[in-house]
Amino acid sequence: MANGLFPRLVAASANRWRNYVGHDFVMLLANGELPEACFRRYLTQDYLFLIHFARAWGLAVYKSEDLAEMRRAQRFVAATLDVEIGLHIDYCRGWGLSEAAMAAEPEAMATIAYTRFVIDRGLAGDRLDLETALTPCVVGYAVIAAERMADPATRLEGNRYCEWLEMYAGDEYQSLAREAEAALDEQFARRGGEGRFSSLAATFATAARLEADFWQMGLEAQR
Amino acid sequence: MANGLFPRLVAASANRWRNYVGHDFVMLLANGELPEACFRRYLTQDYLFLIHFARAWGLAVYKSEDLAEMRRAQRFVAATLDVEIGLHIDYCRGWGLSEAAMAAEPEAMATIAYTRFVIDRGLAGDRLDLETALTPCVVGYAVIAAERMADPATRLEGNRYCEWLEMYAGDEYQSLAREAEAALDEQFARRGGEGRFSSLAATFATAARLEADFWQMGLEAQR
Amino acid sequence: MANGLFPRLVAASANRWRNYVGHDFVMLLANGELPEACFRRYLTQDYLFLIHFARAWGLAVYKSEDLAEMRRAQRFVAATLDVEIGLHIDYCRGWGLSEAAMAAEPEAMATIAYTRFVIDRGLAGDRLDLETALTPCVVGYAVIAAERMADPATRLEGNRYCEWLEMYAGDEYQSLAREAEAALDEQFARRGGEGRFSSLAATFATAARLEADFWQMGLEAQR
Amino acid sequence: MANGLFPRLVAASANRWRNYVGHDFVMLLANGELPEACFRRYLTQDYLFLIHFARAWGLAVYKSEDLAEMRRAQRFVAATLDVEIGLHIDYCRGWGLSEAAMAAEPEAMATIAYTRFVIDRGLAGDRLDLETALTPCVVGYAVIAAERMADPATRLEGNRYCEWLEMYAGDEYQSLAREAEAALDEQFARRGGEGRFSSLAATFATAARLEADFWQMGLEAQR
Repeated sequence: MANGLFPRLVAASANRWRNYVGHDFVMLLANGELPEACFRRYLTQDYLFLIHFARAWGLAVYKSEDLAEMRRAQRFVAATLDVEIGLHIDYCRGWGLSEAAMAAEPEAMATIAYTRFVIDRGLAGDRLDLETALTPCVVGYAVIAAERMADPATRLEGNRYCEWLEMYAGDEYQSLAREAEAALDEQFARRGGEGRFSSLAATFATAARLEADFWQMGLEAQR
Repeated sequence: MANGLFPRLVAASANRWRNYVGHDFVMLLANGELPEACFRRYLTQDYLFLIHFARAWGLAVYKSEDLAEMRRAQRFVAATLDVEIGLHIDYCRGWGLSEAAMAAEPEAMATIAYTRFVIDRGLAGDRLDLETALTPCVVGYAVIAAERMADPATRLEGNRYCEWLEMYAGDEYQSLAREAEAALDEQFARRGGEGRFSSLAATFATAARLEADFWQMGLEAQR
Repeated sequence: MANGLFPRLVAASANRWRNYVGHDFVMLLANGELPEACFRRYLTQDYLFLIHFARAWGLAVYKSEDLAEMRRAQRFVAATLDVEIGLHIDYCRGWGLSEAAMAAEPEAMATIAYTRFVIDRGLAGDRLDLETALTPCVVGYAVIAAERMADPATRLEGNRYCEWLEMYAGDEYQSLAREAEAALDEQFARRGGEGRFSSLAATFATAARLEADFWQMGLEAQR
Repeated sequence: MANGLFPRLVAASANRWRNYVGHDFVMLLANGELPEACFRRYLTQDYLFLIHFARAWGLAVYKSEDLAEMRRAQRFVAATLDVEIGLHIDYCRGWGLSEAAMAAEPEAMATIAYTRFVIDRGLAGDRLDLETALTPCVVGYAVIAAERMADPATRLEGNRYCEWLEMYAGDEYQSLAREAEAALDEQFARRGGEGRFSSLAATFATAARLEADFWQMGLEAQR
């Protein structure tokens, strides 16, 4: 695992990765002190994010070289459009946010920046570039939830955000993230080479930075 | 219907459309006299075609402007990868063709020409360009099967190709084709304009020509 | 002109366009009171912007339907890579910014958001979508400079930013902008239709918003 | 050089490369016995080819990772649109073919197949995939001309096609081809890796096959 592409990308991203996975938004969510306005802002933008996340995986279907690759991308499209968006809408309703209200909200600059950066890397580069840009999202949420669950400062009882943490710390999401790591390794073996590492690391570091900006956008809703 | 985009594209394509839907390959298939080598050649290349057809619909997921558009494209990806390819492989097995043998076959020039033409129109243009390029395939097969079923020269009994005709003449495929026509109209209303018609007609006519070349490629297997 | 696509897009964008062309950054630049740190921040990010601007016009070469369209896109690629980037580097040197220093600077979120939004619209849509997304940049700078030149509050003497204003208010840039407007009209006639207007207006309004965010990013450098 | 990517791709393509560079069309052109109808067919389709060749290099501008890469792609766009197409039109006029007549000709299936295959590889993959697909064209013509010039069976005196051979055997084109080979090596070092070789070799072999089909399309004009 220490030799996998993901830990190498994390190691190369210096503080960009830590700034993302240890962002104040995450720490406040874990101890239950995140203002609700921040979480609602995040939930709304995350809804808009999911639409472009599904588009990015549609692009990955197109960029596949064989049926197995295609089916893996298709599973992400289906998981997003058939399951995640529905669950997200249900969950948001519990927070007083209707789908119509979220769909009517303009995309925040941070949402545009991350989603379109991913899509551009995916179109300008190949599927390995695309998946590398998606990794801070797909794998990052699993890392964040696992780290917070292991942190004594995290408070689950009476924490409004407990359900969110438990979903991403749960077996289902954790194993999805491990599969994504393995898929990245498999693609690096097939389409990578040490010469590509610095470009992939730059993509990963920028994506991690834009994910941190996404938390920051949520946090600034308290103002 | 006479005012729909599809009949207008057919009318504008002159003999290109007739050359495709009334190609000798189709007439011989309908009267049962098509040499088996031609049909096997077609089946093998159609397997390779389906992979790029699924890629084109993955691209359509990416090119969608809203969730409804995305879900329609996703249904074609799923129908192709989860159902059609499987059915095709089963059907081909009955003709003595294994999936491994088909996957090992090089793509014919006609297969490359049509599939990559579609993809290029889809990437250079917008989703209406993409779906227009796909229409001779999606709607054309329904037209071909319905026309042949209505033709007294068609022979079903004792015709080895009867199952193929019945599948595309069946309610399920016919209604899928009608939905595709309606979707084209809806997109032309939303993204079209008379100024685009000549470009769309050129795309449609070239796609119909390349579909006729695809039949021709099958027919030439008898040599 | 009042019937052209550009004035219609401006009218439909409500305050988004005014927030962009009348942004504080612009007003302070015109009266000479913009802090130099803000202008340097802008110059550096504009250098990074130009690279993606050239990429977007490269994409337009690909998305062209005929030689004339291709050559118009090629002129923008050449103008950017052969002339503008060079002039920008020379001009920035006068502000104490070396090319190496600018190239080493990370792209600001605002730079990523606008450039990748343009590229994604261009890839998901057709060339009209692409050029619509580029219009707030190409035509907007001409509008900004002309408006400020006509404003009595603008001060040219002793204004460090006078050269910038004069370049974009000059005949060469003003006529380039008018040609871009005419090209937009020509494409709307050929590939547009009233059904597309709301989607084009949404693209234009978002692009104008992201351009305002770009000024804001410059302004925040004073902190 | 024997370790360069190009000779490795040639070696891996088996008979595909030989079928292309030693195609009957080429041998007959070199000994002056190619029917003029075949050459005119080739010239007309080559004009249509050049338009998509320029589009492919426009795509390469978009897919560039830095200014140097972008400028190299821009040079091909400019060489094609500003020089080659013009020279081609002049040369074709000498063969009785007007630009209008060539532009009115439908693209042959072989022209569509090769150009759109290149574009699809370029969009689905990264710039190395794109340039690999272009190599049989860019470098192949230099190899063909050099091989024929060294062949005692080649006849220059009284050969109507002598000018064609001399252009591609000339220093200018030969050095352009050598630069393209070097650029391929540079990209393979930066974005490649042994894991990618089989996929690149498959792209190269298919492109070489489609180039042979392009000659064949010319040759069949004699019928």
